[in-house]
Amino acid sequence: MRTILRGKNSEVVIDTDGPVVIIGESINPTRRKRLVATLQEHDFSYVIELAESQIKAGADVLDVNVGFPGVDDVKLLPETVRAIQEKFDVPLCLDSPNPEAIEAALKVASGKCLINSVNGKEESLKALLPVAKEYGSAIIGLCMDDEGITNDPQKRLGIAEKIIERSLAVGIKEEDIIIDPLAMAVSADPKACLVTLETIRLIRRKLGHNITQGASNISFGLPDRESLNAAFMAISIYNGLTCPIANPEKITAIVRATDLVLGRDDFAVRFVDYYQSRC
Amino acid sequence: MRTILRGKNSEVVIDTDGPVVIIGESINPTRRKRLVATLQEHDFSYVIELAESQIKAGADVLDVNVGFPGVDDVKLLPETVRAIQEKFDVPLCLDSPNPEAIEAALKVASGKCLINSVNGKEESLKALLPVAKEYGSAIIGLCMDDEGITNDPQKRLGIAEKIIERSLAVGIKEEDIIIDPLAMAVSADPKACLVTLETIRLIRRKLGHNITQGASNISFGLPDRESLNAAFMAISIYNGLTCPIANPEKITAIVRATDLVLGRDDFAVRFVDYYQSRC
Repeated sequence: MRTILRGKNSEVVIDTDGPVVIIGESINPTRRKRLVATLQEHDFSYVIELAESQIKAGADVLDVNVGFPGVDDVKLLPETVRAIQEKFDVPLCLDSPNPEAIEAALKVASGKCLINSVNGKEESLKALLPVAKEYGSAIIGLCMDDEGITNDPQKRLGIAEKIIERSLAVGIKEEDIIIDPLAMAVSADPKACLVTLETIRLIRRKLGHNITQGASNISFGLPDRESLNAAFMAISIYNGLTCPIANPEKITAIVRATDLVLGRDDFAVRFVDYYQSRC
Repeated sequence: MRTILRGKNSEVVIDTDGPVVIIGESINPTRRKRLVATLQEHDFSYVIELAESQIKAGADVLDVNVGFPGVDDVKLLPETVRAIQEKFDVPLCLDSPNPEAIEAALKVASGKCLINSVNGKEESLKALLPVAKEYGSAIIGLCMDDEGITNDPQKRLGIAEKIIERSLAVGIKEEDIIIDPLAMAVSADPKACLVTLETIRLIRRKLGHNITQGASNISFGLPDRESLNAAFMAISIYNGLTCPIANPEKITAIVRATDLVLGRDDFAVRFVDYYQSRC
């Protein structure tokens, strides 16, 4: 299955057979005081810096999240989108819990965006699916619903099926639905990663959709997060993850390595190119 | 299935359910001029250094290979074994293509060793299986035979089955047979790692034996070998690898991370201990 995202004139294809597409996570105020401070002044210079460094480090798509306490992201999200797309021709992943902010951003965004995210809650499905249909966007369907977060991979699969069914019903194309199996911190639950890995395997096998995840969450609260994220990333890709949301500065090397190991990089061209670009 | 190796008074259990046991690869003259030079003088001080640093870095078992052009390892292998076991109480993996050197080393070694390796060739089976039985050793069964190396995982599985059958016939215990699926350089063949990963999966699923591999080979000839080895190691462990032969200085972090991700390290005790030991 192939999900196509677009910038002004660019196109990014996310293919379930790989290679992996990286969605840069860094335009996100969590633990980035400087981003909050500059955004409060409607100063987008730091956003532009983050966009540039992520693209250089291997990001194909940029996640844009400008939510922090006290902000009105219905105004700020579209402003940020415009600032980024004036400088870079890259598809965007619009990231907000607020459907109004998503719609406001879609109104000004060029190309075809990815909405991050819809989940299995009635409220979310009702608010966002018609918007995705109207703007021709792709969506991320997060495997949680009105009952919360389950640790049963079969139930997470069931939520994915429900989101897909409801999306198809409003006219969203099957290939425009990317599933997020949900990755939780392994420090809080020793089985957390196993549940996610099994959910990925099931989605890949039974549904065949593209799969994303916020891949840095799993190592929260632990040291040497890079080794943990690397191990989890490699196995996730093996099981079917195709477009992780991550920090490309830290994850691109292992992503390129995994693509090579999985026979998706003939003559190691992308792996060696990336290596050389970082020397 | 549990394979038990022993030093003088120590015991290492390799369990198919993990956690992973690391066999240190560094006592091997390939690309180690200083090791060749000191061994030629029967000076074991550098061997002892390599043993110590590997144990500190997480090796549970040490591979001992002292083969280089012009050496008589029938004499040198037992001398080296004795030198190591005088200083360290650690199980050894005796690594030589020469069955006489293996037997000479078994005569002086304490505990229960691992023989690296028997393969599916008639010559190998006939020479080594009776020796393994006589000394109560465990063996590594390498998935190649008189027809050479196949790229068909099912055929590699078939060779493993043949080695197991022949080993059982001479009285070697099932759990004392560890299979090596064979890992080749991905620079020479883009599908090399995929073949190995699928062979691991099949062995784990159909035979249930412990699995080893010389895990550094796959990145030969490429830059950033650590990312490649890390990606391959994580997926290999997920598929069933339980006792890689590798450089612990470079691989222990990703091995501990993978065990944690796979729910084999409650409260992240081993992962955090290792991290702290390297600070």
